[in-house]
Amino acid sequence: MHLTEEQLLIYKNQGFLVLPEYFSRGEIEAVKAELSSLSADNSPKKVLEKDGKTVRSFHGSHTINDVFNCLTRHPFIVEPAMQIVGSQVYVYQFKINLKAAFSGDIWKWHQDYIYWRKEDGMPRPQVVNAMCLLDDMNEFNGPLFLIPGSHKEEMIDVTMHNSNEIQGWISNFSANLKYSLNQKLITNLVSKYGITFIKAAAGSIVFFDSNIVHASTNNISPFGRSTVIITYNSIENIPSAVVNPRPDFLVSQDYRPVIPLASNVLS
Amino acid sequence: MHLTEEQLLIYKNQGFLVLPEYFSRGEIEAVKAELSSLSADNSPKKVLEKDGKTVRSFHGSHTINDVFNCLTRHPFIVEPAMQIVGSQVYVYQFKINLKAAFSGDIWKWHQDYIYWRKEDGMPRPQVVNAMCLLDDMNEFNGPLFLIPGSHKEEMIDVTMHNSNEIQGWISNFSANLKYSLNQKLITNLVSKYGITFIKAAAGSIVFFDSNIVHASTNNISPFGRSTVIITYNSIENIPSAVVNPRPDFLVSQDYRPVIPLASNVLS
Repeated sequence: MHLTEEQLLIYKNQGFLVLPEYFSRGEIEAVKAELSSLSADNSPKKVLEKDGKTVRSFHGSHTINDVFNCLTRHPFIVEPAMQIVGSQVYVYQFKINLKAAFSGDIWKWHQDYIYWRKEDGMPRPQVVNAMCLLDDMNEFNGPLFLIPGSHKEEMIDVTMHNSNEIQGWISNFSANLKYSLNQKLITNLVSKYGITFIKAAAGSIVFFDSNIVHASTNNISPFGRSTVIITYNSIENIPSAVVNPRPDFLVSQDYRPVIPLASNVLS
Repeated sequence: MHLTEEQLLIYKNQGFLVLPEYFSRGEIEAVKAELSSLSADNSPKKVLEKDGKTVRSFHGSHTINDVFNCLTRHPFIVEPAMQIVGSQVYVYQFKINLKAAFSGDIWKWHQDYIYWRKEDGMPRPQVVNAMCLLDDMNEFNGPLFLIPGSHKEEMIDVTMHNSNEIQGWISNFSANLKYSLNQKLITNLVSKYGITFIKAAAGSIVFFDSNIVHASTNNISPFGRSTVIITYNSIENIPSAVVNPRPDFLVSQDYRPVIPLASNVLS
């Protein structure tokens, strides 16, 4: 499955591309069914919400679970990722954000690339996120808010204004983001570019730029809003060594290019 | 301005009625301009967000400000309120919920009437809320979520499960609501009735039933979401005496029927 020229142009211009109901309900159910097997894990790969009990995210699950591993190699995802990045890719990061019904907390306004640059030494934003919706995403369950076109601003080097708060990588995955953008910046960006949100059914895929500014509210609805986000980095964009590298389950050091599987791998 | 039979039927069936852009931009700007005069007030009428600095609500402002007083007597609001309630009405409660840009916090799932019944001794739900939008309300700024038709369940007598938290009336206006509905109840109600939200421009009015189940998320957008909510009670539905009455600015003891003014009163 390859993107058309028109789809690539949309991606380039607005910084994201939605492919509605890209996977069948059956395929998505097969993926979703694996979530329960992850819950028993009490390693640092599991990040909790501020309430200390609801799971917020799982990291690196593709290294311990075959179904998630297959998803990272599904041609419907990998082939567009290679087109966008312009080269072969490897899995840089894999996370599942659960945004649980009634409990899922906010993600503050941020860009992704600044974390990968500052924390991990990624040379360029030659990288793409593929968000796979395991639930319907709608107005009620804390959908992804995007500032379309804001990736054109490139990396906005925010002051590390959270320096008095929790440090270390965990702070990047709790509701207190280390490099979140301040209110004035967001007001100006929304004034310049507008704002939109993702409304799409389970099975849809959203490819989005590592520099697009995004956020999401908490989820007070009875609908879960779980997504898998696979970050594909170009094999030509391997991070340089940093002083305090983050754990391998956050920043993979397996640079082997992903070889796409057959398209019926989840069926 | 009176409601049509069809509008009254919609109200009765779904428990709310939206009247889009009911007031002109000029009229709404005139009302909104008065907000700044309230900020200086440091009385208990001003309720802050959990952050201890952002204003969450102002209460009883119609007793100290002419413009807000005129709004409570505007025929576009009072006449429909009288139709809905089926009698003359008085202003039972007046509040301004600011839901500030980037800071406005959630309102948990709840019904209004249970507060008025349990705290204030209101005999029956012969009462209506008129919410006047001072800003556009949309998917981004924590819009009002409603479970349409849920008012037909009448008052759901929830356990006072917040009994270990802050007590007193202030707890009813912070993000910790005393009579909020639990997750199981909300899941069942949404399964039975569905869920909707209000998307409407500044100047719109939303009339809603005191027993409709509603909530709203926090506001992470750069758009403020201020509303005036005027609660009109029937003059035939005066609360009985209670042991610990709430302050007059929360529960008015001025039972004189509202006499509508001329329709150009805000122009």
